[in-house]
Amino acid sequence: MFFEGSEKKAEVFVDPKQLSLLTDISDDFWAALVHCCNARILSSMHNRECKAFLLSESSLFVWADRFVILTCGETQLVKSLEYFIREIGTDKLVHLTYQRKNEYFSHAQPSCFGDDIKLLSHYVDGKALRFGEMDSHHNYVFHQDNAFKASPAHKTYELLAYQISPLASQKLTTPGLTAAQIREFLQLDRLLPGFTLDDFVFQPYGYSVNAIYKHNYLTIHITPQANSSYVSVESNLNLIERAPLILEILQPASFDLLSFNEFDFAQQTAQFIPDIYISKSLVKETLSNNYQVYFANYILPQNSFSRATQIDVAGDNHAL
Amino acid sequence: MFFEGSEKKAEVFVDPKQLSLLTDISDDFWAALVHCCNARILSSMHNRECKAFLLSESSLFVWADRFVILTCGETQLVKSLEYFIREIGTDKLVHLTYQRKNEYFSHAQPSCFGDDIKLLSHYVDGKALRFGEMDSHHNYVFHQDNAFKASPAHKTYELLAYQISPLASQKLTTPGLTAAQIREFLQLDRLLPGFTLDDFVFQPYGYSVNAIYKHNYLTIHITPQANSSYVSVESNLNLIERAPLILEILQPASFDLLSFNEFDFAQQTAQFIPDIYISKSLVKETLSNNYQVYFANYILPQNSFSRATQIDVAGDNHAL
Repeated sequence: MFFEGSEKKAEVFVDPKQLSLLTDISDDFWAALVHCCNARILSSMHNRECKAFLLSESSLFVWADRFVILTCGETQLVKSLEYFIREIGTDKLVHLTYQRKNEYFSHAQPSCFGDDIKLLSHYVDGKALRFGEMDSHHNYVFHQDNAFKASPAHKTYELLAYQISPLASQKLTTPGLTAAQIREFLQLDRLLPGFTLDDFVFQPYGYSVNAIYKHNYLTIHITPQANSSYVSVESNLNLIERAPLILEILQPASFDLLSFNEFDFAQQTAQFIPDIYISKSLVKETLSNNYQVYFANYILPQNSFSRATQIDVAGDNHAL
Repeated sequence: MFFEGSEKKAEVFVDPKQLSLLTDISDDFWAALVHCCNARILSSMHNRECKAFLLSESSLFVWADRFVILTCGETQLVKSLEYFIREIGTDKLVHLTYQRKNEYFSHAQPSCFGDDIKLLSHYVDGKALRFGEMDSHHNYVFHQDNAFKASPAHKTYELLAYQISPLASQKLTTPGLTAAQIREFLQLDRLLPGFTLDDFVFQPYGYSVNAIYKHNYLTIHITPQANSSYVSVESNLNLIERAPLILEILQPASFDLLSFNEFDFAQQTAQFIPDIYISKSLVKETLSNNYQVYFANYILPQNSFSRATQIDVAGDNHAL
């Protein structure tokens, strides 16, 4: 069974003098927004600084002045952004960033990045860039091109792991696995001490967790099945420092690191990324909105031959 | 400007006692067959053992007992195979193999591999496999599952190069470049001594060449534009031995090697592939039709950061 784990992601800032997304916006609004991209809210939690919604396809985090949404599968996230802009109005919108990574099966998607930025361009002027090569892992970033300048202190990180170890894949596809067992496997107590967690185990497999502590957040989404396994970790905590633990648990054959405003990316990756991984792509760019973006893809060199993967000719292979 | 260079490929054997593809089949038939996948014949040449057609999208080679066809762009090669099977009849068909590599922009294609094998399965029973990982370069192979056993002497090779050097890309996109200049750049006299050549320079750029000598063939197709550059070389000559010269000319950041019935693949790649390339994928499988297939993907490690690639938001980005 194939599931497209690859996410689209958006970050939207509003003017806090005009609007607080925490106190002025109801949960019904977020439910409607999420519905626009064909996802739904499974559960939510909050503290004084942040609300976190676990979605049928990934996650939504809301602070007073901004929200971050990630959706996977065949959702069309730009439809949710369109809803937000139409409902709230561009006058209260301070800045919008929309990001989309290359998919495993792009032809099964309702739109491509080119379609998405065409739609967004009806509402905001923007620029677009690609991080990573076309024939390899890459991420597209569209960002509004206006007076907004990101604070250097506003940092986010993504660690996207592909082809997790057979052991990890087998463990995470075990029938009847509980959320507690997955938390233990992921060592979330070590990774996220003091955080409040909200998680969900999908059937027949798949796992999502949101974690918040004060204004900090971290979210993990797992598509564990062999042949198309994918685990995304996204946070405003430093994931380069935490990469050794995450990589030890998942042992992916390949992973991407993305950071926004981590100015010490090069030094930190040299320090924390295990030597067994080879850097295949390295991209650095400062956007006109003042985000310094780094993208790196790492691979494990192969030294022995594996077998080919059998495909069931009679099966449903529309995604191939 | 984007062009999908990635090929679909088929090899079809017929029963030489019932039919010679060289003497019993007219050029009009091949023109009609090629038309079925939305390509057309540009030119042709032949010797006593082989006919070679240069197509608007890649190439067709015909011997008495078999043909090999490669088509790129948005062609739907299975439609040509369907035409062949319907016209010739399955009783004269000895064996069919259909191959498709992952595309840069799969969502711009009229069908996916799953659709293709569903269509072929209406006519022949077959098996399918994937060589290479889903999140990386990979090749799908569908082959008829019948009594046919490939001769160990029947060897074919593919070298697929991605992200050729900026210098090679610049040279090959030079306005007004002639076929003679491209032959010289590719050092075809060194690569193919004694071969007869038939080539074509596409506008604004792009190049195809067929080469034949007795029963031997080699074909090169070049999509030279930076950001999505792709060069395919396919032959029954040993391309592993010839890889050093090809890699020296193109200097790709990544390439695939595929071989059918090259039993010394491991030793030869150890001998001929330059050490600067790291093997990212290594797959070996013996098919039930007796083809031993090897697939390898190699990359150049990156040590310095490059800039992101700008995308024209107002442009035609449907392929992104």
